Amino acid sequence: MCDNMKLGLVSRTDNTDAVDLDKTIIDYLLENKTEIEVDSNIIEKLPEYEEYHVDIEDMSCDIALCIGGDGTVLHAQHALSPKKIPILSINMGTVGFLTEVDPEELFECLEKLLSYDFFIEERMQLDVQFNDKNSRVLNELVIMTKTPAKMLDLQVCADGEVVDELRADGLIISTPSGSTAYAMSAGGPIVDPRVDASLIVPICPFKLNTRPKILPGDSNITVKLINEGKDGIAVLDGSSNNELKYEEEIRLKKSDTSAYFVKFKKNFYNNVNSKLIVG
Amino acid sequence: MCDNMKLGLVSRTDNTDAVDLDKTIIDYLLENKTEIEVDSNIIEKLPEYEEYHVDIEDMSCDIALCIGGDGTVLHAQHALSPKKIPILSINMGTVGFLTEVDPEELFECLEKLLSYDFFIEERMQLDVQFNDKNSRVLNELVIMTKTPAKMLDLQVCADGEVVDELRADGLIISTPSGSTAYAMSAGGPIVDPRVDASLIVPICPFKLNTRPKILPGDSNITVKLINEGKDGIAVLDGSSNNELKYEEEIRLKKSDTSAYFVKFKKNFYNNVNSKLIVG
Amino acid sequence: MCDNMKLGLVSRTDNTDAVDLDKTIIDYLLENKTEIEVDSNIIEKLPEYEEYHVDIEDMSCDIALCIGGDGTVLHAQHALSPKKIPILSINMGTVGFLTEVDPEELFECLEKLLSYDFFIEERMQLDVQFNDKNSRVLNELVIMTKTPAKMLDLQVCADGEVVDELRADGLIISTPSGSTAYAMSAGGPIVDPRVDASLIVPICPFKLNTRPKILPGDSNITVKLINEGKDGIAVLDGSSNNELKYEEEIRLKKSDTSAYFVKFKKNFYNNVNSKLIVG
Amino acid sequence: MCDNMKLGLVSRTDNTDAVDLDKTIIDYLLENKTEIEVDSNIIEKLPEYEEYHVDIEDMSCDIALCIGGDGTVLHAQHALSPKKIPILSINMGTVGFLTEVDPEELFECLEKLLSYDFFIEERMQLDVQFNDKNSRVLNELVIMTKTPAKMLDLQVCADGEVVDELRADGLIISTPSGSTAYAMSAGGPIVDPRVDASLIVPICPFKLNTRPKILPGDSNITVKLINEGKDGIAVLDGSSNNELKYEEEIRLKKSDTSAYFVKFKKNFYNNVNSKLIVG
Repeated sequence: MCDNMKLGLVSRTDNTDAVDLDKTIIDYLLENKTEIEVDSNIIEKLPEYEEYHVDIEDMSCDIALCIGGDGTVLHAQHALSPKKIPILSINMGTVGFLTEVDPEELFECLEKLLSYDFFIEERMQLDVQFNDKNSRVLNELVIMTKTPAKMLDLQVCADGEVVDELRADGLIISTPSGSTAYAMSAGGPIVDPRVDASLIVPICPFKLNTRPKILPGDSNITVKLINEGKDGIAVLDGSSNNELKYEEEIRLKKSDTSAYFVKFKKNFYNNVNSKLIVG
Repeated sequence: MCDNMKLGLVSRTDNTDAVDLDKTIIDYLLENKTEIEVDSNIIEKLPEYEEYHVDIEDMSCDIALCIGGDGTVLHAQHALSPKKIPILSINMGTVGFLTEVDPEELFECLEKLLSYDFFIEERMQLDVQFNDKNSRVLNELVIMTKTPAKMLDLQVCADGEVVDELRADGLIISTPSGSTAYAMSAGGPIVDPRVDASLIVPICPFKLNTRPKILPGDSNITVKLINEGKDGIAVLDGSSNNELKYEEEIRLKKSDTSAYFVKFKKNFYNNVNSKLIVG
Repeated sequence: MCDNMKLGLVSRTDNTDAVDLDKTIIDYLLENKTEIEVDSNIIEKLPEYEEYHVDIEDMSCDIALCIGGDGTVLHAQHALSPKKIPILSINMGTVGFLTEVDPEELFECLEKLLSYDFFIEERMQLDVQFNDKNSRVLNELVIMTKTPAKMLDLQVCADGEVVDELRADGLIISTPSGSTAYAMSAGGPIVDPRVDASLIVPICPFKLNTRPKILPGDSNITVKLINEGKDGIAVLDGSSNNELKYEEEIRLKKSDTSAYFVKFKKNFYNNVNSKLIVG
Repeated sequence: MCDNMKLGLVSRTDNTDAVDLDKTIIDYLLENKTEIEVDSNIIEKLPEYEEYHVDIEDMSCDIALCIGGDGTVLHAQHALSPKKIPILSINMGTVGFLTEVDPEELFECLEKLLSYDFFIEERMQLDVQFNDKNSRVLNELVIMTKTPAKMLDLQVCADGEVVDELRADGLIISTPSGSTAYAMSAGGPIVDPRVDASLIVPICPFKLNTRPKILPGDSNITVKLINEGKDGIAVLDGSSNNELKYEEEIRLKKSDTSAYFVKFKKNFYNNVNSKLIVG
């Protein structure tokens, strides 16, 4: 079996079902003599496992189990992807395009995991630079108007060419992973995660001829607000909000740091199609 | 000729071109011995016409000239439509679906006006009731998430039937007039102002099967936020922002107060098509 | 009870389930001493009911039961709507936006019908005139290119104004009833059948700024092919195909003949939403 | 200067402007002592140049000038791309996403060409296999219903996974080059030609949750009609029509044969944006 694999455990803990599942998983893994690392917020809820306490920033596990929805996965991979630690995500959220396993399949999947019966999928991320800060997104950067119903004027360039000048509520620059998240709601196409590309998707554009655009993965993309007096907000992977001023330039390019996910079967399209239907 | 027509003048005044045009128009009308009423903010800029000063709220003119863009028109008609005073709008803004006359056609149009060579177009408005307040919109009510990239859960009912339950960035309830404004950016159809109907247009809906819907003009429409903890913002005709709480009900129905516009020719589709192209 | 109501029966008969259901319904109605009229193609399959044989063209029933999908309903109402005979449609087809009753609800609904526990919904139709022929559609007229992947150039006018000039694979002119049929696949909005309006929906337009348009119900609409050498096909309610030549004018206006449907509850939106999901 | 470059000339000749331009170009090139090869249909119109007659199939030029619209380019590159002969296309058609030069820029561009002041852009093509025939498309394969307004049931697979099962008027499988052609009219995104990907774009899908999809360039794609009795038509690059039977499998994969185009500047987005506006 699997005497050498070390597993990390990260989880949302604002939900008792998730915490119950954490406990079930920890007990199962300990029974199976698997070495484990358990993140701080879980220890707060389950102090009896204090001896396995390792902050997510300090984890050195082979694979991290991530219990939650897409938000939890996005948060976890931010800490783990620079260490190339793959994530196996178990869905305890309402929406989960990034999650691989539903709770009812849990034990079957843990068994496969411990038997090394899986593969690793690599997903590109985008480095985002603005305000003298560097960030990284797995899904997308969203630039939105600060004032509902007041449009922004935006210019998008790639590799020195003007890709679009548009008046819109906002703009999404997305990876293929993000194509099934916010970009989809805004009308973007579904992009297979194996495609080396970025998506530019306008949000409620004023000009009707503005279309989603797919750029090469290695493009150097810049976005600027070009109308004085209209400021925006930059949202990275749905969580971190930043003010964006007139003429400030946001620079995006493919990150050297990929995210890694544990997969048991090729099911991207099946996942997407079933989620598009049930909504 | 036109010895009896009394004309009001309302205008944006944050723009010297508009104020210059105001002066030109006043002089032209005085030369033509037309009785005039001039709104306060114009008098502030052009105090030499103080004797013609009448606040927009107190105007009793036959027709009001409105110099500005759609924002100016929306503001003016709010004060004037209860008195059934038609508006002739002269475009001094960037976007003008509601405006009828470009500055270069001004004198030709004033001449037609003074010769009674025009017709009046009636446009329906929607009464909006929430927070114990009553308002009225010519274009639309927009309900938006307060937090960019965090979706609202909304329920829309009409005449006792559930029309839609959706997760989205927001929702637009629009009149036919509003179909060429924000609703169009969100993907709605163009509705002839003579159609007696309201539009329900989702903004970035999560479920891809959510479509714009056209309801009878006399529908009693209600909208509610149905997910606890997620608040929204209600924006009326693009300007007035109001907080919207969980489970608070917004009620909309066709207003008894229509808006009235001076038109010189039937050109709705020509206007729309040319504006859709030049953006 | 219902000693006076006379019921007609029309049905698809290319499907043994439908014929079995016809027999069940006839037996139920005869047991309930209801006067009946049975269409020719049913009698061919069930000759034992010959004494009740009345061709659909000669029916004088109060209400006609229609067993099949939208195609059967469209066919039946063509014969019945000029006589203002309402249709109660029972779904035995794959897709049924016009059908009211699923087979499992059949007896409950027949009981309600015979107890006069229902209401009648009126739906507008469009008169279509071209090639010196007059026709009538409940759903839509589709104008399509004869050659796949070769676009048509079309001009649409209404009441003397040019509504659209477009290059496209085709164009749909639809009633509100048709808004949930082909027009929906082409990207049109959903229009409540109570709205007095027609829809103009382009099929794969070349110009991206071409949008669906909603016109007043009483508009006089004309459509013309404006590029010499490119002919089209006109399809009425999905079934009858007609060649369409360069510059030939098609004229459409609201018909004096409405269609009438038996309804047991207000469920238009519920029907639409559930059908949009399951597809 | 350019003593060694040999140039081919292919052209539409159904248009006297195009033939006049052919003559102008030939004279210019001969004056500049450039070696030339002139296609048969041009020689038919301009027999005085018979000595330069070389059939397009036998051309061995360094670069071929192509005078016409996208149709002419698609035809020419079919013969030339296996020999890796780049095309410089000069627009004499109504629509030209593939054309590089407008007639008024002709001499400036010929001068640049003869001075080797240009670069070569490579564009992927798709090999298409069905009916025991092999073909190749630069833009797209379109599968359409044979009967207007009767939908097809289609299954799309890629690399063993079901990508989509849909009911629709048709389906487009497109290269990035084709993303600005028919796929765009059907609602697809614009894909930079440098992206290594194929597009799957449904035409008027019945299920509203069907979205355009972007697959990796090296995918093995298969498409099948899965409803007995409904046949389709396969159209390759807008010109060659083929019957398609129930259950027949179409196989597509990236071709080893690319197309090559002469470019003077990076202007893909500028071209697209200006053409989207003027239509």
